[in-house]
Amino acid sequence: MTKPSISTTEEVRRYNLGGVLRLLHVHGAMSRAELTVRTGLNRSTVKALASELTDLGLVREWTPESSGAAGRPSIMVAPSEDVFVLAVDLGVDHLRAARIGLGGVVLDRTEIIDDQTAYALDETVGRLAAMLLRLLADAPCGARCVGVGVAVCGLVRAETGVVRFAPNLGWIDVPLAALLDAELGGISALVGNEADLGALAEHVRGAGAGTSDLVYLSGEAGVGGGIIVGGRPLGGSDGYGGEVGHTRVNPRGVMCRCGRRGCWETEVGEDAVLRATGYEPGTPFATVLTAYAAGDRRVARGMRTIGHWLGAGVADLVNIFNPQMVIFGGITQHLFLMAEADVRASVAGALVAPREQVNLAVPGLGLDSELLGAAELAFGSLLRNPLVAEPVGLAASRRPQ
Amino acid sequence: MTKPSISTTEEVRRYNLGGVLRLLHVHGAMSRAELTVRTGLNRSTVKALASELTDLGLVREWTPESSGAAGRPSIMVAPSEDVFVLAVDLGVDHLRAARIGLGGVVLDRTEIIDDQTAYALDETVGRLAAMLLRLLADAPCGARCVGVGVAVCGLVRAETGVVRFAPNLGWIDVPLAALLDAELGGISALVGNEADLGALAEHVRGAGAGTSDLVYLSGEAGVGGGIIVGGRPLGGSDGYGGEVGHTRVNPRGVMCRCGRRGCWETEVGEDAVLRATGYEPGTPFATVLTAYAAGDRRVARGMRTIGHWLGAGVADLVNIFNPQMVIFGGITQHLFLMAEADVRASVAGALVAPREQVNLAVPGLGLDSELLGAAELAFGSLLRNPLVAEPVGLAASRRPQ
Repeated sequence: MTKPSISTTEEVRRYNLGGVLRLLHVHGAMSRAELTVRTGLNRSTVKALASELTDLGLVREWTPESSGAAGRPSIMVAPSEDVFVLAVDLGVDHLRAARIGLGGVVLDRTEIIDDQTAYALDETVGRLAAMLLRLLADAPCGARCVGVGVAVCGLVRAETGVVRFAPNLGWIDVPLAALLDAELGGISALVGNEADLGALAEHVRGAGAGTSDLVYLSGEAGVGGGIIVGGRPLGGSDGYGGEVGHTRVNPRGVMCRCGRRGCWETEVGEDAVLRATGYEPGTPFATVLTAYAAGDRRVARGMRTIGHWLGAGVADLVNIFNPQMVIFGGITQHLFLMAEADVRASVAGALVAPREQVNLAVPGLGLDSELLGAAELAFGSLLRNPLVAEPVGLAASRRPQ
Repeated sequence: MTKPSISTTEEVRRYNLGGVLRLLHVHGAMSRAELTVRTGLNRSTVKALASELTDLGLVREWTPESSGAAGRPSIMVAPSEDVFVLAVDLGVDHLRAARIGLGGVVLDRTEIIDDQTAYALDETVGRLAAMLLRLLADAPCGARCVGVGVAVCGLVRAETGVVRFAPNLGWIDVPLAALLDAELGGISALVGNEADLGALAEHVRGAGAGTSDLVYLSGEAGVGGGIIVGGRPLGGSDGYGGEVGHTRVNPRGVMCRCGRRGCWETEVGEDAVLRATGYEPGTPFATVLTAYAAGDRRVARGMRTIGHWLGAGVADLVNIFNPQMVIFGGITQHLFLMAEADVRASVAGALVAPREQVNLAVPGLGLDSELLGAAELAFGSLLRNPLVAEPVGLAASRRPQ
């Protein structure tokens, strides 16, 4: 309640520079005239801010060809493609990494589909570092890396980048940011929870663009949640917020890896799906999808149970958050699509007022929500203060050869 | 993500005026020197802002007597006691109303303990309006009413002040703000959910002062939740957020007034307490408290069950919100104190990382959290923009006779 008041013109300028850069990052190229309208700043201020961002190498400006209409066309401004971050999506069965430019464009990507739990921690970190160094080496001359962001399926302490608990990777108190920093030589990685970052990306440029309140579900072996409240990510006091997979929906359910009985993820996670559809533990999830698509009745019946529990948990979240949208990400996307009627029937148990406001949706960014969210995390410091254009240090830049 | 940038010096001035007034409202009188330190503004700016607030009649300034130490003592600034709001706490069995000054001081109060469900809606509104008009009539000459805030035990649509659903009052779609406005003749009342407002007051000046993330539980017949996320109230997209009482903790539990089975409030609300302790429905809650205090074993045993379920729901909220504090307000305060060990045992089921951060607490404002929260709601518009010092219209001011 007592945050310091904005006071100096220097602070206002930095705030406005960040505001303009964020607009371009989120919405892409636009004319100075449009920037004027969108920011509410006057024309000369917008011109000065755009020039300064150009000098910082963060945007480029050009004069469009005349359309033939009366008057000079307004100068265009676009985020610079030479400014990029490295983003990582580290899941139980995959490592994805990408070079992502200002504006959220995937410029280069690489991926390993493999069971990471079969590798020792240092092997996984080593594989990841190698992927990132290759992406860095392949970046064009003069391009600048301004951050590294990692999405991981576990509870992360935001400040330190320590993964406190990732039951599905078997990690406890893994200092992932520090381990990566050591491999990368001076690049500071920021680490976040995959669902939190998926929510962030869907909010900035996915299905939830323009909403103020949304819940994003992420699922692989378990179920995670990323939540946007009043336009801002729910972090909680230490960055552990959003662990909706460990709310107890069924006191008579099965034991969870977290030590509690009947957590939401024990009722709708991958193991629960295999149980409900009659498959052995360890069967690839794709087998269930194929059987469902082929019209297998046992699978269809089992999915109705999963849909019931999935919707029951969503109803609770609708009551708690009154969101405009619930986005089913990760494997919950498939669960929702296979059992939509049962999910909706359970969600109907929420209170009328919040229920009539909510849309159930699948991600707008496909499988890339979490990767793009890691990029947003990495761009954060630049967007808050464009005057510090090299937040991760010069070591991260690729110098002309 | 695209909120307009702050640009004009006029906006900065208004922002800073609001910042200084809020500091005084929250922390009470302080010297200009302390304001300088707390705001980070320079001395001449603080002097100008304090003078302007004095001219607006919102603060008063005075020179303290010299303490004998070297140098002139810094001029003191305090919120004006002549600026007040009317606040209401409308519960199932009580109407409380108070005149509350800038700074959060209760200047006058009145209360009716009675079962409001025994009255028709217009009678309840009439009783309330009479209480407010009496408080207004008793205000000193020259004092100014700058707002009216109402805390009510139901889902409220924030923008319109319509109570969408208050099952324990039997209200559906009651336009409470409009009904009160009509009775009060031009004073615009703002209406909010009691738990949301209890959370707000506890965050501003109660047990949760200084925290960024807290959960406040409110309970009378049912259980409500007010939640602060990252220093800001969780409203949800339409103001219905925080309905934690209707999350389903026990699929085999009893039917809830909301139509769902086994909601948290059916397991820990007043009816559940009476059931668990062997009393007939309708027995006054005070009877249970008295029996517990007298060492009644049946009551003690029943409270252990209630404690278990209360803690189970809190564990879910700890996983979802990673709060620094959970505050047990309303009757949940008594439940927590009677069954603390069982509550804590259930809360231990939360994930380790968020669990080790959370404190369980009782309200710092006693029974007044919700009333003081209604006052915060009413002061909101003045604190956001002190230049509009009469947001509810002149009709609300008491003119010299």
